[in-house]
Amino acid sequence: MKILGMDTSTLMTTVAITDDQKLLGEYSLSVDMSHSEMLVPMIKSTLDGLKIDIDDIDLFTISIGPGSFTGLRIALSTAKGFAIAKNKPIIGVSTLEALAYNICSESYIVPMIDARRERVFSGIYKWNGNILKVVKQDDALDIAEYFNYLNENYDKLFLNGNGSIAYRDLIEEILGDKAIFAPFNLNSIRASSICEIAYERFKNGLIDDVDNLKPVYLRESQAERQFSKGE
Amino acid sequence: MKILGMDTSTLMTTVAITDDQKLLGEYSLSVDMSHSEMLVPMIKSTLDGLKIDIDDIDLFTISIGPGSFTGLRIALSTAKGFAIAKNKPIIGVSTLEALAYNICSESYIVPMIDARRERVFSGIYKWNGNILKVVKQDDALDIAEYFNYLNENYDKLFLNGNGSIAYRDLIEEILGDKAIFAPFNLNSIRASSICEIAYERFKNGLIDDVDNLKPVYLRESQAERQFSKGE
Repeated sequence: MKILGMDTSTLMTTVAITDDQKLLGEYSLSVDMSHSEMLVPMIKSTLDGLKIDIDDIDLFTISIGPGSFTGLRIALSTAKGFAIAKNKPIIGVSTLEALAYNICSESYIVPMIDARRERVFSGIYKWNGNILKVVKQDDALDIAEYFNYLNENYDKLFLNGNGSIAYRDLIEEILGDKAIFAPFNLNSIRASSICEIAYERFKNGLIDDVDNLKPVYLRESQAERQFSKGE
Repeated sequence: MKILGMDTSTLMTTVAITDDQKLLGEYSLSVDMSHSEMLVPMIKSTLDGLKIDIDDIDLFTISIGPGSFTGLRIALSTAKGFAIAKNKPIIGVSTLEALAYNICSESYIVPMIDARRERVFSGIYKWNGNILKVVKQDDALDIAEYFNYLNENYDKLFLNGNGSIAYRDLIEEILGDKAIFAPFNLNSIRASSICEIAYERFKNGLIDDVDNLKPVYLRESQAERQFSKGE
């Protein structure tokens, strides 16, 4: 079955098409804040390059967060549009699970996305055979508290994502040799990981309801913070 | 420094642009035998998407094999053309090293490319800190002999590449639980890995001579075999 996956939760816009257990194509560009302009042309370019029609896609999948508020809404809206227009199923995947999927280590895997204001979005994952298990649920975490928690509770951790790059100095200071950093090309979310997770989920009948699928922000938006403060 | 990497050694055509330790963009398409038609348009699409001019590229890098004879010559010729025309350095990287680079495991990593006629191109690699070390040199190997050798000499191995997919049943029969297979989206060579390896090599002054850089075939072409048999 052909799956079209996409993600715009960070500055990297990424699109992939898989067929069962085969990667057919993937296109990723770090285009700053122009997700909304780039996403659909990148999907079209990948489909055209593979000589695949959008009607051939059997399942649409996106990351639903955590990540950039605007970015999450762009990919989710686009995927919902395709799923509704083509009457095909949709599956939403955790951004952090997709990031952890880049890492084949037997150690604990700690994907981190920079959440600004000295916080990261992060969870802890571990491979159990061919299944990536959640050890600690995704959350928005204060960096100093979180890095100390990791240091006190774990011996060896594999880190990736833009949060691990942004706070690398502090991580090394607190965690020392316990922290292993990924090669830099494994620090970005890849839409092919989202497709692969969605394919496993689809085989287990875990399809999402297109009307109720929502982004997982894990914290209030700036507008909501200002509203609740009465600004 | 901006690096343009490309690879056409297997059925996946892949192009990437990195800037120091940052992935800017990557485009990969499984397009069977139409490498020669797709490579340059994919480079152009990636450059245009990033609003980067070819004159901004500081280093060109390609995989030099082992892999498809025609594929290797296409990427190498294209990269040499750019390097000579723009008077910029070039670096050739082992296809198998690039494939091993996808895997962050602490175990031994065994990338495999299907070499047809019941043979694989393979080597053995292992991470030592942030450096990927060669444990066993790349070679063209008889599958049954090689899988038995791996079984007798290693306890745990991480396998990836199209050779590990093509011969998965035999690998499981001989190696049993010792063999761990990569998630399917880590089975293809990624041009970003080639860029990352080339960047490390460039920092150590290991630039190749554009006139003498040749593909590493590791076996005779069909034409050469027929010639040596007097056919």
